[in-house]
Amino acid sequence: MPGGFFFSLDGVDGAGKSTQCRLLADWLATLGREAVLCHDPGGTDLGQELRHILLHHRGAMAMSAEALLFMASRAQLVAEVIRPAVAAGKVVLTDRFLLANVVYQGHAGGLDPAELWRVGQFATGGLEPDVTFVLDLPLEVSMARRKPSADRLESRGADYFARVRAGFLSEAERRPGRVRVIDASAPADVVQEMLRIEISKRMNQ
Amino acid sequence: MPGGFFFSLDGVDGAGKSTQCRLLADWLATLGREAVLCHDPGGTDLGQELRHILLHHRGAMAMSAEALLFMASRAQLVAEVIRPAVAAGKVVLTDRFLLANVVYQGHAGGLDPAELWRVGQFATGGLEPDVTFVLDLPLEVSMARRKPSADRLESRGADYFARVRAGFLSEAERRPGRVRVIDASAPADVVQEMLRIEISKRMNQ
Repeated sequence: MPGGFFFSLDGVDGAGKSTQCRLLADWLATLGREAVLCHDPGGTDLGQELRHILLHHRGAMAMSAEALLFMASRAQLVAEVIRPAVAAGKVVLTDRFLLANVVYQGHAGGLDPAELWRVGQFATGGLEPDVTFVLDLPLEVSMARRKPSADRLESRGADYFARVRAGFLSEAERRPGRVRVIDASAPADVVQEMLRIEISKRMNQ
Repeated sequence: MPGGFFFSLDGVDGAGKSTQCRLLADWLATLGREAVLCHDPGGTDLGQELRHILLHHRGAMAMSAEALLFMASRAQLVAEVIRPAVAAGKVVLTDRFLLANVVYQGHAGGLDPAELWRVGQFATGGLEPDVTFVLDLPLEVSMARRKPSADRLESRGADYFARVRAGFLSEAERRPGRVRVIDASAPADVVQEMLRIEISKRMNQ
């Protein structure tokens, strides 16, 4: 049985994460590798309920409560989907993971990024992606690509999203082996090619 | 304005926590002190949604996901209810708090109690009860007093609840200033009297 791998795609909204994940799964299939696609939050029954609360809850939600709901969803996703798939030799591709909390609720939201990493360790039992790809876009491109029907999280202001982008870039700088920045302003097929090169490199190490 | 206080009542099921909380609120009113009653999980709109999931979710739920849902509910409760009430000089009485997670998911559930304290610090922003009262009962009394309609958490086995009781007692031993054991096999009015004595002592320090 081949060894399993775990990659996450993260970054600002509108960077094409879910499309890129699907294209990667198709490519992996041509290599004879089974890919498991998931998105975080979500990916399990419990996770879908929590995702709904995170995107659509109308009442007050403290930033720490928001972060902990993401963490709860992720704990279930790791236990039920990711850990078993990696153990079975599959390649897991997730649309967002822990880095998103470190950035959205930490760098951009005012919580301590180091504390979010620590709580994340508890949620994941220490499982982290082999590589996290940050699909990066200039703020104005990301804002222009956003859906008109923004949800609770997407409807924050431009200042917030400027801090999000800066947060992703600063985490990538701090953890160069684990977090790789990909320029998502390139055409989708070029972005896909860059991801395939990086993933091939990691899988053939 | 008088200083605010924050007390939690915790311990095994069937020990009379909610009744004792109500009696304490009545007594505090006779002393001219406004009490705020809450229960954890719950106590806010978000908390009530999460409480419902915790008690009634039918699908899989990892122990870490369960703990994080409690933490999310508590983060909101602290931000929205407890912290403002204490700051306004009120006396907050909560039916369960962080110690319950340390015991139910930690000592009894197999997670590391020290990690749960740490995640709890994140959820509460470091706010902890002035005193946590553990209403203690022998296992057979607690089991006999349980409602016939046990929810998801109450329907765990006797071994689990034996570890719960032992966990509460061992945490009380480790943190004697913060956690006080009250013998809840005594009549309810005697238990109430013991609580009033301890709370008066703390409020008059």
